[in-house]
Amino acid sequence: MKKLYHGACYYPELWDEDTLQEDIRIMKETGINLVRIGEFWWSKIEPNPREYNLEYITNLLDLLAKNDIDVAMCTPTPTPPIWITDGHPERLHVDAKGQTMIHGSRQHICTNNESIRAESQKIIQVIAKAVGNHPAVVLWQLDNEFKCHVRECYCQQCKHLWHKWLEQKYQTIENLNQSWGTGVWSQRYQRFDQVPQPFETTPFLHNSSIITQYKCFHREKIAEFATEQATIIRKYSQAPITTNGGMGFGIDNELLFKDLDVVGFDTYAPQSMFYAFTMNCDIWRGIKKNRNFWLLETSASHTGALDRHANAHPNGYLVSEAVSLYALGGAAFTYWLWRQQAYGCEISHSAVISSWGKPGVGYQNVLAVEEARKEIEPFILKTQFSQGELAISYSDRARVFMETENHKKNDYRGLMTHFYQAILKTGIHRDLIPENMELSGYKMLMTPLMYHLSDAYLERAKAFVEAGGIWIVGPVTGGRTEEHTITKDGALGKKLEALAGVEALYTYPIENTGATGKAFGIEAPLKLWSTVFKLEGAEAVGFTSGGVTPDMPFITEHKVGKGKVVMVGSMPSEAAGDRLWKVLVEHYASEAGIKRKANVSEGTIVAFRHDEKSSYLVAVNMDGQGGSLDLEVGCLDVLTGEKVEAGLLTIVPYGYRILQLQS
Amino acid sequence: MKKLYHGACYYPELWDEDTLQEDIRIMKETGINLVRIGEFWWSKIEPNPREYNLEYITNLLDLLAKNDIDVAMCTPTPTPPIWITDGHPERLHVDAKGQTMIHGSRQHICTNNESIRAESQKIIQVIAKAVGNHPAVVLWQLDNEFKCHVRECYCQQCKHLWHKWLEQKYQTIENLNQSWGTGVWSQRYQRFDQVPQPFETTPFLHNSSIITQYKCFHREKIAEFATEQATIIRKYSQAPITTNGGMGFGIDNELLFKDLDVVGFDTYAPQSMFYAFTMNCDIWRGIKKNRNFWLLETSASHTGALDRHANAHPNGYLVSEAVSLYALGGAAFTYWLWRQQAYGCEISHSAVISSWGKPGVGYQNVLAVEEARKEIEPFILKTQFSQGELAISYSDRARVFMETENHKKNDYRGLMTHFYQAILKTGIHRDLIPENMELSGYKMLMTPLMYHLSDAYLERAKAFVEAGGIWIVGPVTGGRTEEHTITKDGALGKKLEALAGVEALYTYPIENTGATGKAFGIEAPLKLWSTVFKLEGAEAVGFTSGGVTPDMPFITEHKVGKGKVVMVGSMPSEAAGDRLWKVLVEHYASEAGIKRKANVSEGTIVAFRHDEKSSYLVAVNMDGQGGSLDLEVGCLDVLTGEKVEAGLLTIVPYGYRILQLQS
Amino acid sequence: MKKLYHGACYYPELWDEDTLQEDIRIMKETGINLVRIGEFWWSKIEPNPREYNLEYITNLLDLLAKNDIDVAMCTPTPTPPIWITDGHPERLHVDAKGQTMIHGSRQHICTNNESIRAESQKIIQVIAKAVGNHPAVVLWQLDNEFKCHVRECYCQQCKHLWHKWLEQKYQTIENLNQSWGTGVWSQRYQRFDQVPQPFETTPFLHNSSIITQYKCFHREKIAEFATEQATIIRKYSQAPITTNGGMGFGIDNELLFKDLDVVGFDTYAPQSMFYAFTMNCDIWRGIKKNRNFWLLETSASHTGALDRHANAHPNGYLVSEAVSLYALGGAAFTYWLWRQQAYGCEISHSAVISSWGKPGVGYQNVLAVEEARKEIEPFILKTQFSQGELAISYSDRARVFMETENHKKNDYRGLMTHFYQAILKTGIHRDLIPENMELSGYKMLMTPLMYHLSDAYLERAKAFVEAGGIWIVGPVTGGRTEEHTITKDGALGKKLEALAGVEALYTYPIENTGATGKAFGIEAPLKLWSTVFKLEGAEAVGFTSGGVTPDMPFITEHKVGKGKVVMVGSMPSEAAGDRLWKVLVEHYASEAGIKRKANVSEGTIVAFRHDEKSSYLVAVNMDGQGGSLDLEVGCLDVLTGEKVEAGLLTIVPYGYRILQLQS
Repeated sequence: MKKLYHGACYYPELWDEDTLQEDIRIMKETGINLVRIGEFWWSKIEPNPREYNLEYITNLLDLLAKNDIDVAMCTPTPTPPIWITDGHPERLHVDAKGQTMIHGSRQHICTNNESIRAESQKIIQVIAKAVGNHPAVVLWQLDNEFKCHVRECYCQQCKHLWHKWLEQKYQTIENLNQSWGTGVWSQRYQRFDQVPQPFETTPFLHNSSIITQYKCFHREKIAEFATEQATIIRKYSQAPITTNGGMGFGIDNELLFKDLDVVGFDTYAPQSMFYAFTMNCDIWRGIKKNRNFWLLETSASHTGALDRHANAHPNGYLVSEAVSLYALGGAAFTYWLWRQQAYGCEISHSAVISSWGKPGVGYQNVLAVEEARKEIEPFILKTQFSQGELAISYSDRARVFMETENHKKNDYRGLMTHFYQAILKTGIHRDLIPENMELSGYKMLMTPLMYHLSDAYLERAKAFVEAGGIWIVGPVTGGRTEEHTITKDGALGKKLEALAGVEALYTYPIENTGATGKAFGIEAPLKLWSTVFKLEGAEAVGFTSGGVTPDMPFITEHKVGKGKVVMVGSMPSEAAGDRLWKVLVEHYASEAGIKRKANVSEGTIVAFRHDEKSSYLVAVNMDGQGGSLDLEVGCLDVLTGEKVEAGLLTIVPYGYRILQLQS
Repeated sequence: MKKLYHGACYYPELWDEDTLQEDIRIMKETGINLVRIGEFWWSKIEPNPREYNLEYITNLLDLLAKNDIDVAMCTPTPTPPIWITDGHPERLHVDAKGQTMIHGSRQHICTNNESIRAESQKIIQVIAKAVGNHPAVVLWQLDNEFKCHVRECYCQQCKHLWHKWLEQKYQTIENLNQSWGTGVWSQRYQRFDQVPQPFETTPFLHNSSIITQYKCFHREKIAEFATEQATIIRKYSQAPITTNGGMGFGIDNELLFKDLDVVGFDTYAPQSMFYAFTMNCDIWRGIKKNRNFWLLETSASHTGALDRHANAHPNGYLVSEAVSLYALGGAAFTYWLWRQQAYGCEISHSAVISSWGKPGVGYQNVLAVEEARKEIEPFILKTQFSQGELAISYSDRARVFMETENHKKNDYRGLMTHFYQAILKTGIHRDLIPENMELSGYKMLMTPLMYHLSDAYLERAKAFVEAGGIWIVGPVTGGRTEEHTITKDGALGKKLEALAGVEALYTYPIENTGATGKAFGIEAPLKLWSTVFKLEGAEAVGFTSGGVTPDMPFITEHKVGKGKVVMVGSMPSEAAGDRLWKVLVEHYASEAGIKRKANVSEGTIVAFRHDEKSSYLVAVNMDGQGGSLDLEVGCLDVLTGEKVEAGLLTIVPYGYRILQLQS
Repeated sequence: MKKLYHGACYYPELWDEDTLQEDIRIMKETGINLVRIGEFWWSKIEPNPREYNLEYITNLLDLLAKNDIDVAMCTPTPTPPIWITDGHPERLHVDAKGQTMIHGSRQHICTNNESIRAESQKIIQVIAKAVGNHPAVVLWQLDNEFKCHVRECYCQQCKHLWHKWLEQKYQTIENLNQSWGTGVWSQRYQRFDQVPQPFETTPFLHNSSIITQYKCFHREKIAEFATEQATIIRKYSQAPITTNGGMGFGIDNELLFKDLDVVGFDTYAPQSMFYAFTMNCDIWRGIKKNRNFWLLETSASHTGALDRHANAHPNGYLVSEAVSLYALGGAAFTYWLWRQQAYGCEISHSAVISSWGKPGVGYQNVLAVEEARKEIEPFILKTQFSQGELAISYSDRARVFMETENHKKNDYRGLMTHFYQAILKTGIHRDLIPENMELSGYKMLMTPLMYHLSDAYLERAKAFVEAGGIWIVGPVTGGRTEEHTITKDGALGKKLEALAGVEALYTYPIENTGATGKAFGIEAPLKLWSTVFKLEGAEAVGFTSGGVTPDMPFITEHKVGKGKVVMVGSMPSEAAGDRLWKVLVEHYASEAGIKRKANVSEGTIVAFRHDEKSSYLVAVNMDGQGGSLDLEVGCLDVLTGEKVEAGLLTIVPYGYRILQLQS
């Protein structure tokens, strides 16, 4: 990394030449050194079939280069021009109700349609060829927010591809029938082409297997579309390729980014959910180990569209976001958008500057970000983000399983966020890692809410434990096969139970039965789909009380090799539950020998960095209340060069401190 | 009845031979003496057209018979195999929005489609012929939960049948126009084939008549489908025929069961609504007078599907359900299901044993049920359920009327449940009887919430009153014709008003007008569509106060023959209203000379039984708090043989006592 | 005006000859002197194509004339007979989801369909010719409640007309692309016929311009349909023409009534929202200056349909409605409906008399209305309604803009009602006037919630201010072009900002930022889309505090000519905000020299009237609590002829007083 990017998304195609010049002037003034362009301009670049405005792009890039503004260049595939879909309803996206989308918004087309794929390839090839080696282009972004507005497509083309995909996966229809248990309700298929797309127009619910597999099929297809795009670009450009991902979209991010070079994403976490901002950083950093990640969209103040708006950011919050991001491994902090839309449905979204070219409501904060960026840039560039010793699996496949089986609207992301908050409060330096990430360097692994544990995952976890790691499993982990059916060799599957030294006795919804759980001297109500255990070598750490299955172990630990497997069979909840989680995590972190941990007050976050000689700690107050850090030993304030005494160090509201630890 | 059945629903088609053997072994151990099979196995029995696995069935029945496990054999019509609907969208169910259902769930077909009827007849004939005389088969269940997932079908075939049905019913289109008042909004039809199906895609609401009649048409058709099935079975089997009904499905249960032999149903009332469990028993017992009824599905613990789960039953509740059921006239207490589904969308539903063959979370309770069953079986088999002296009309036709005209989401079943609870608290032994049931043996009849009173009903009620009965009418009873139009000869119809000795002055929604009602010294807010009266021979029992029609009689009584007609024009509500209802019921029960009544604490229910010599009382605590029974005289504990003194008798939480009264 | 009408809607086509005679007898008894007939009777009048029952109408009119009952004659277009749509699905209305409506309700047809238009013209011609000169006919009502059940139609015919309309408006597609900013998201069209109808089946939101324009297109078309009808009638009749409008329907009332003669409307405000009743009077009076308006439907007690009912009116409220209406400029107070429907979906709606011919629950109140009507008729007929000195713009175009851009479900009508209540509490006599109304006679103009200010509006307001008026602008006023895009020459547009002597600095959603506003010594939380100002000649009147833009002017005033422009950049809210509004209005009203104002207690409304010599004041208590009027000088009670002393005058619950002021 040679600089920290302070960027903005820009739509020069919507403005005249004079405005463009003015915009660049203000960008320079503001400190913007990166613009993202081109994700929606297809109709500008190819207004009619095979009629290209390439000069427009190269002139623009020349101008930006001349002004030292780097460029993240997008492929324009989310918004095909009208001439691609006009008269071609078969190219449009069809939703789960069978409704066909229309032109005028975004993502209205089926990304699996052959013509859409062919047209996309052509325009990407043309653009990549024209600007692939342009010095301004430092990054490629594929499309934009794949599947943020639509979920799985149900068109005829998808039906055909679905059947082909199933055939490839299951080989024989008998195998599919067997795997999915289609004996239930006489679902049994005779041929692959009889397997329906799981439309919502069904009297009751579909089979868990068909729902989960239809989601997986589409997640594979969108990754295939991305790879197809990347392959073309690589012919003409050396710049790294990313896409703009999101935690809530209908994608498997680990899969999507597998063939891409760096991670890009957006987040619009409001101040009241600042922890969601850092959680994004921690998750996206995890997708590509040891690569800096790019925040490609965030708001300078409030989000807005015709039908809604969020709250304007309080002054100061933006700086705390930017500093946190850079400290947590971010390469770019990019606003959506530079100049407020004068047209469309997002005219009420805040921007750096207004449609009439004056400062937007967040502009002073943008200036403050630029000041902070310049202040911390030398430090960030000479140091690297330090890996945590605690890893938590965050899996989009687990999310699919919970979407399929979401009793009472359980929501993977929401539940994971709740866990994340508990960890954040411990001050332990943590990584959120994708399901298939290797575990070297970690001392503790947590695996909550993962209905299906693959054999590969189990093997990795077992090796990790045998080598001395502590693995905390649960709640709601295990018990489902890859096909989203029940493990028939035990409530949580034989392999997991054996490794954990338990028999999972009962697995059922413990909520509202009056059951509580007690461990580490704390008693809390239990929630979520739960399991109680019979000890088969493990030791009991926590017991249930009351309810239907009283006085049974629900937290156990089992020594395996040099490490330990800890089963957490239920979700301690409410305030007492949060306390129990905190104590549990701290207890095992201590046992695992986790050292990378700061004694920090709630609302202030800490990132750990290092260079060859020293360790550093970046503390940022994000709740606007100010905070404190309890230093065990004195250290050095990197920004002021002053010594800092051991003891309580104060951090002003939305302020930050960078400390060099004793090395 | 030769034994009390303790049953379970079983899907051997989903499991291998070894598991089948193991299941039967555990069933024997558990005390299961009945299995219900076959409702969803059509694709197993006829995997391809006219290719039957009949040996599979007979082998299975032989095995069960060998193990003394009786069988409720189902017809498999809710889930036709894919080869029946593949390429035949016209055979699928179409909902009120015009959406066509797809394969993969249940009830996705139109049960009025000719091909579906023909295929159904064929498979039933084949199965009935193969096993109709098999000794294991003690009951036939037609289909399963008719119309539990879907309501009226709106397909083209139904459109055609609808027109034929209308023609048969109304003879001339002018008659239909007249009856429905199609002068309103120029609805007037020229031909029967112009009458629409009342799709939801209408700018405002449809005519009350068309909505009600379309529902009635479909309720007749589903009964026709059942009769068609029963006719085939009777050619090959002597075993009684039932189906699995439900209070909430789109059916008219009285009509559906008319041509069937015994009553079967399911209920999944959670412990917090234990009164809904006994209400089910009381309603279903009423459908076939003097026949024991079969509970064909209930949960051993919690219900569950991918998108939801209920709470696990508290320990003890299952026994209280089973004992109540047997005491209230039940022949069978059957779990859904034996072995937890490993596939499909109900993988999270509790079962007697788990998918991996271990006890489910409710298993200890199932064992306790078996113990109780064995303990009370001799008593139940030698006695019979005693008819109540109080009858309450529970009518699925009244339910249809309230579905059509449901001001502010009034819900027939919910409102009736509220009434039922009030009666339950009085300890009066009661029957819920269908609309057309004769009234011999009763001393008091209550008719709430019945918008339309047929002439036949009025005649029966009049004769009942003249012979000395007390008839309590209302609230919301009367005022609608059979066609769901307004009675033009009086607010509640001339016949009813004359019989009640009143003129119904105003009929309007009294809610939120500030009106209260006062009677028996209790004043309560008034709710629901209400009527105030002018006395035309009757005496006032209760008066309104405040609101728009203050100081008018809203409860009246009128001597007719040896009996009395009591009009209740409005719904006293809230806590005071519940008290007023209780006092009103007790007042008239006492006047009617009702004796079958127990002084029992709330949460404990009482059933009355008798043999040739004695009367008995079965008390069961269902709220888990324990309860008491205030005995006026001493009696004999049937189970212990000990004498019980007069006075307060304690019943432990979920416990039961069987007492022989002085004879 | 020769008399005050006391009317009822009547459906003689639904009743037999005897009932008709009986109805007329009771009407006479009740004092009904107007019936509205014919809006739904098309199938009665033309049961088969070109087969007319004209004699039925003329006989009916003769009978009514003979009984001195005047007639409002409707065109029957909301309910075309079955033979018009049978076999013609293309004539039916299609909603935004693409669903086609069916026969059986109302407004199920596309009013832009050529055949519907042609058939409508034919039947109107036939009826108008037959009865156009009949002496009973004193008013024509076109159709009924245009677009009350449906919004914009999305059928193929509308698609075609939409494209023609666009072409006419924009001339070239490039112009449309430019105006709408279709560069956003590559929306850009090549031809008019590619512009979609903005169906809901879009992945995200449509462009603001396309949504707003599609609404405007339809509002023009419905006005065209009305004009088409009126043109035919005028050939045969001298009676004035109106239609039955509503504040909540999908129409632009100013446009709709432009070519009509008088204003007609309905309202069903419940007593708890009595201010909505007078607000209706004030709005509808404004549509046609100096013409009396007709209330064509209101309820004698409760509204009702199969799925809902409102509360029955408290006794007394009806009189207060009628007297208020006549005093505020109403010509007719008309019930929907005379005789309760015995059929259809509105069987539970209150009526003057019941289906069985007896008094409805509100009948005594109807008699009281008749008594009051007779009492005040001489006074009303000899006086005229006095124009207010305060005008508030109420614009259906502004409503369209807010429908398109309704952040957090902001609702124009609801917000305007809140403003209206604040004004009502000041006792200031006010007019609500349509957007294009000229301003002569006013001293103060308020323009809240008008996203787009047209040049013509701005010119009129400027001239008004220069001549000495005070113009209060905002909140949420300005900032959008006619095309519903952002004004690119300033946050609120250059013209407005210049006139107001401000620069609008930031415009953003101020809610939940902690911001308050302080002015006139009152501090209140701020809400809605807000603007803070930099003074460019204006003076600051109110400042923000806290939040993101603290200590900035949000209320300013600027002297222009002899008058003043007051900007209100935000919405002071909650109780303190209501107080601030009240003080602000009173402050500027006083400055503007507004005299027509009464010191009246909340819940009592006042109307001002005059004749050539004197001024009068009609005070009506509408909240049922009774009220008082603080008289500065003595006056004369018009109804009793007695003198009234200065000081506090009491008004009994639902009572009214008519006072002659010192002249």
